[in-house]
Amino acid sequence: MHSIGIDIGGTQLRVAALGQDGRLIAKQAVPNDRTLSPQENVGRLLDCIESWDLDYEGIGIGCPGPLDLVFGRILNPPNLLGWEGFDIVRFVEGRTSKRVMLDNDANVAGLAEALVGAGKGRESVFYLTVSTGVGGAYIYRGEIVRGANSCAAEVFNLMVNGSTDHRSGMNDGCLEDQASGTAIARVASRELGIEVDGAGVFALAHEGNEVALSVIGRAADALARGVANISFVVDPNIFVFGGSVALHNSFFIDLVHEKAKRYVLNPDTLSFALAQRGGDAGLVGAALMV
Amino acid sequence: MHSIGIDIGGTQLRVAALGQDGRLIAKQAVPNDRTLSPQENVGRLLDCIESWDLDYEGIGIGCPGPLDLVFGRILNPPNLLGWEGFDIVRFVEGRTSKRVMLDNDANVAGLAEALVGAGKGRESVFYLTVSTGVGGAYIYRGEIVRGANSCAAEVFNLMVNGSTDHRSGMNDGCLEDQASGTAIARVASRELGIEVDGAGVFALAHEGNEVALSVIGRAADALARGVANISFVVDPNIFVFGGSVALHNSFFIDLVHEKAKRYVLNPDTLSFALAQRGGDAGLVGAALMV
Repeated sequence: MHSIGIDIGGTQLRVAALGQDGRLIAKQAVPNDRTLSPQENVGRLLDCIESWDLDYEGIGIGCPGPLDLVFGRILNPPNLLGWEGFDIVRFVEGRTSKRVMLDNDANVAGLAEALVGAGKGRESVFYLTVSTGVGGAYIYRGEIVRGANSCAAEVFNLMVNGSTDHRSGMNDGCLEDQASGTAIARVASRELGIEVDGAGVFALAHEGNEVALSVIGRAADALARGVANISFVVDPNIFVFGGSVALHNSFFIDLVHEKAKRYVLNPDTLSFALAQRGGDAGLVGAALMV
Repeated sequence: MHSIGIDIGGTQLRVAALGQDGRLIAKQAVPNDRTLSPQENVGRLLDCIESWDLDYEGIGIGCPGPLDLVFGRILNPPNLLGWEGFDIVRFVEGRTSKRVMLDNDANVAGLAEALVGAGKGRESVFYLTVSTGVGGAYIYRGEIVRGANSCAAEVFNLMVNGSTDHRSGMNDGCLEDQASGTAIARVASRELGIEVDGAGVFALAHEGNEVALSVIGRAADALARGVANISFVVDPNIFVFGGSVALHNSFFIDLVHEKAKRYVLNPDTLSFALAQRGGDAGLVGAALMV
């Protein structure tokens, strides 16, 4: 029996069918059309599924948070304007009469990495995504640990040091204010005196720019302390890194690894890997929830 | 069928039999006699078990860490001098021909609280013990989460702020250097200019001593940040507090609760309780491992 994965993104909506061997057997992407309602947008994906004429067990949906997982509802993700309050699970269940699961994009990508990616075969996998923000997923014995309020692995707010360079609404000394692509760009722009984005900071570092290297070194130290804090709570078998900042700058993750060894209790067994499923992790993980 | 729990302590060794209804049906304590070998000391407990003439399934042992759980061996706990390297699991298995489980005292007490104490019925319980040190246990779906290196819930080293008031070997800004009874006594002694122990600091605070209140307030803030960090990783249904500092000073835990609400993502559902099994938690939890 097949299962279906749906990946909701701010610019693109994707759907795929996963075979029992874990391979994608059909895949389709459509733009997220802001002139359409969320019902119409998601409806186009359901039309795709129907057109495939497959026998399938259920549908998993990955979506940027915040979500209400109890009611299967999208709350107010910043890059899904107009989707606020959309009861996506009920809508898809109503249209398909199948079992429908919803989870946030980091959890879904983490599940894909844990089951069929870089963490395959490990009892516990902590997935960290570093891009504009910092997110995570904790997969234990093949299942996403969601927590009492669906807030497990919401590591963006994890406090790692005494930094007070913080944005409103976040904790002082938190990971997202120091280790995200946005934070790296903000700090570097300030210290360089020119506007530069995250990719630009890494490009400058590759050219040997001392300021850029220093900014990246401090971000890596904050992330290393975050990794250590996570290890003091759940001691995972492996940390898997996804997100554009991690995947485009493997030396950054190597630096985090080296620094994290200074903080953890078991430096010799601290295991890091880059995500292997790349852009398909969201689709595959969504289907794997089924 | 009954199960047996053994609780190894620096001053006392205890053994009990647990009935299927979860109640202790026999219990015995002997002093930890430093003139005897660990084999002789533990042998006295095994003699107790034999004298009870019960049919039992196995033996669980709780012991201060560090332990080697893979080989069932005691490493070098500071208050078990002479027990270093003792293969306690093999020794007890050899004497009894029963299945024997070993875990550290915090994990064992946490298991008791999760299954038959303050966390009963919850999917996930985070147990925190605050006494001379700070320890923890993460119980998920009725089982201790040990982690890849048996270091899950080793929260003493969790970094929560930028404090540099640290002891050698610990991370800067870590929980144990700020929130343990030892840390509270050390900071208060320095600021008061007199030697005072943990209980003394709390006694002074009860009398309204401003310095003692300030020291306790800062310790509570560090612990609150630790609680928040744990919630960002596993979002447990409840935090259960044990250990002498917590159990003798419930206002301290109330203060931690109030402060932690400022840091977590879900202040309304942040749930705290004091441990209910008191001094028996170690014995009961050890037996429950079986």
